[in-house]
Amino acid sequence: MKVNGTHTRTIWVEGDRSIGTIDQTLLPHRYATIRLDTAEDAARAIKTMQVRGAPLIGATAAYGMALAARADASDAALERAYALLIETRPTAINLKWALDEMMGSLRNRPREERVAAAYRRAQEIADEDVEINAAIGRHGVKLIEEIAARKAGPVNVLTHCNAGWLAAVDWGPATSPIYQAHDKGIAVHVWVDETRPRNQGASLTAWELGHHGVPHTVIADNVGGHLMQHAQVDIVITGTDRVTAQGDVANKIGTYMKALAAKDNGVPFYVALPSTTIDFAVCDGVNEIPIEQRGAEEVATITGRTADGRIESVRIVPDGSAVANYAFDVTPARLVTKLITERGVVAATREALAQAFPERMTTVK
Amino acid sequence: MKVNGTHTRTIWVEGDRSIGTIDQTLLPHRYATIRLDTAEDAARAIKTMQVRGAPLIGATAAYGMALAARADASDAALERAYALLIETRPTAINLKWALDEMMGSLRNRPREERVAAAYRRAQEIADEDVEINAAIGRHGVKLIEEIAARKAGPVNVLTHCNAGWLAAVDWGPATSPIYQAHDKGIAVHVWVDETRPRNQGASLTAWELGHHGVPHTVIADNVGGHLMQHAQVDIVITGTDRVTAQGDVANKIGTYMKALAAKDNGVPFYVALPSTTIDFAVCDGVNEIPIEQRGAEEVATITGRTADGRIESVRIVPDGSAVANYAFDVTPARLVTKLITERGVVAATREALAQAFPERMTTVK
Repeated sequence: MKVNGTHTRTIWVEGDRSIGTIDQTLLPHRYATIRLDTAEDAARAIKTMQVRGAPLIGATAAYGMALAARADASDAALERAYALLIETRPTAINLKWALDEMMGSLRNRPREERVAAAYRRAQEIADEDVEINAAIGRHGVKLIEEIAARKAGPVNVLTHCNAGWLAAVDWGPATSPIYQAHDKGIAVHVWVDETRPRNQGASLTAWELGHHGVPHTVIADNVGGHLMQHAQVDIVITGTDRVTAQGDVANKIGTYMKALAAKDNGVPFYVALPSTTIDFAVCDGVNEIPIEQRGAEEVATITGRTADGRIESVRIVPDGSAVANYAFDVTPARLVTKLITERGVVAATREALAQAFPERMTTVK
Repeated sequence: MKVNGTHTRTIWVEGDRSIGTIDQTLLPHRYATIRLDTAEDAARAIKTMQVRGAPLIGATAAYGMALAARADASDAALERAYALLIETRPTAINLKWALDEMMGSLRNRPREERVAAAYRRAQEIADEDVEINAAIGRHGVKLIEEIAARKAGPVNVLTHCNAGWLAAVDWGPATSPIYQAHDKGIAVHVWVDETRPRNQGASLTAWELGHHGVPHTVIADNVGGHLMQHAQVDIVITGTDRVTAQGDVANKIGTYMKALAAKDNGVPFYVALPSTTIDFAVCDGVNEIPIEQRGAEEVATITGRTADGRIESVRIVPDGSAVANYAFDVTPARLVTKLITERGVVAATREALAQAFPERMTTVK
């Protein structure tokens, strides 16, 4: 997508095969790119959340292995890099997948071929992610086109959190249909949930939509229900961290209440995802998926920019008050209109998922 | 309720009949009382939101008229004070009611009696509010007692915004049942929605519950649905700005989605209110109540305390992103279990409201 008018990915090769990426911790107030020269640099970027989002973490780890090979292509060096990178975000499934892919393509290869092979495979991993997200957009944009065909004025999309370009290599699952609609000249307007407590909507989704020129409005997370009551939302599109075999959707905390409001007002509620996000080993999302609790300080303090341009954190909760920080919730499949995947738009049911992804069913009990 | 262990109201007479109140704009980080010596002081306190909440605004305006009378009890001076105070918050119904009460009790009285009469009537207005809120609590506490009788562990109450002690003279509509349960020795724990964008939950409700010693946990507004899915909420109690003749509830933005989550999970959803809040002239809340839109800066910037103790505002939205700030939403009566009023717990239906408040029906077409 575009930054300052120039087409940009979230990760790229630059100079003598170093890696460039965006320091997302500075967004939305400052856009700065950083250069990763070593596997250690890549690990640090993941760990400090300069890069975030499952696909981008995977691509960064893959390029981290390539950087390691560039410095020392020995088995020992590659294994050290693998160990370093895998521990940066232990729960990120994409991270392990990308690292295993890299090791698989390097291990049995002569040492002199490894550097070129590593950059080639890392590039493929990044390109595959772009293609998957582009395909999600090609399927999802049809939903927006159908709405545009039957109403006057822009199609109003509501999204929660950032399942956007910044979380992927390009396009972003939930935003790909929006960007493709915009690029086709369809008038779209996005209601951006700020997404407390980490504010990924206000800080990342709003920033990327703005740079690509997509009209959008930031709202408090409390507002979506009111907008839906008053026909101000035509479609909801969110991302997801995990979809179960029966179509339950784990996503950023607050998604469930948006889905309830959509149901109550007849607004279609779609979830966009690469199919790797589907976990066929889990069925009942509400009862089987453990919900991570994160640190209280994410709720108790907020970071932003002061009037004179400093970045400052401020506490908004009284000293002595307890704080809880549940990071995700689960939206039952009954509230999900459909899932937008790279293979098409699929009902959030066990039957439809099994039919769309038959090769995945062999691994399930 | 208690502040630093001492029973305190939100407004009181001190010294030579000056008025004391709390500067609520400094909460939760600093507790400071201020002295109002003139009607101008009272007007400024209302206008700058040092005092807020319909009942407290009404009481402050009433004492403002008493301060005016103390300085100059002439008709002209009282009319000037009325005009000054009425324009501080034009949409506050309690404000106009209190000012009219004061003028009505002073206008036809000899000048030498007016000062004493003014302080007497203002005191009555404050005392009436305390008694109404105490009565709401006496009815509401029974609901908490019933839950406590059939479960182990504390009764988990979820509340949104601040319909608390700080919004009233004492007790607070939504918090009165909670304080009375706590004072009776019933174990209660309150989930406090932070209530973006103005954070009245995190900054005011958490503060007052903490000072009174009620266990509570601040959560992002996104969390309530997840907690209800997992049986972590036994009852929701919110306040309201306006209840319609058929029981629809206008309240702080986000209340509607909490009510949807309560319904979806079989959690009782109660709304506590002084009956003056019922507007028998309005029927369909969703379609008839205009929703105020407030300034974008309330969403785009947040004020809090820095690590070194300064109060600072920080911007959290990218420059150039539009922001919308709907202040209230309407929860349809079908989602409201019952209304807790000073006359008892009443179904959110036209019939039940008409039966509970028959004298109010005479004024309706």
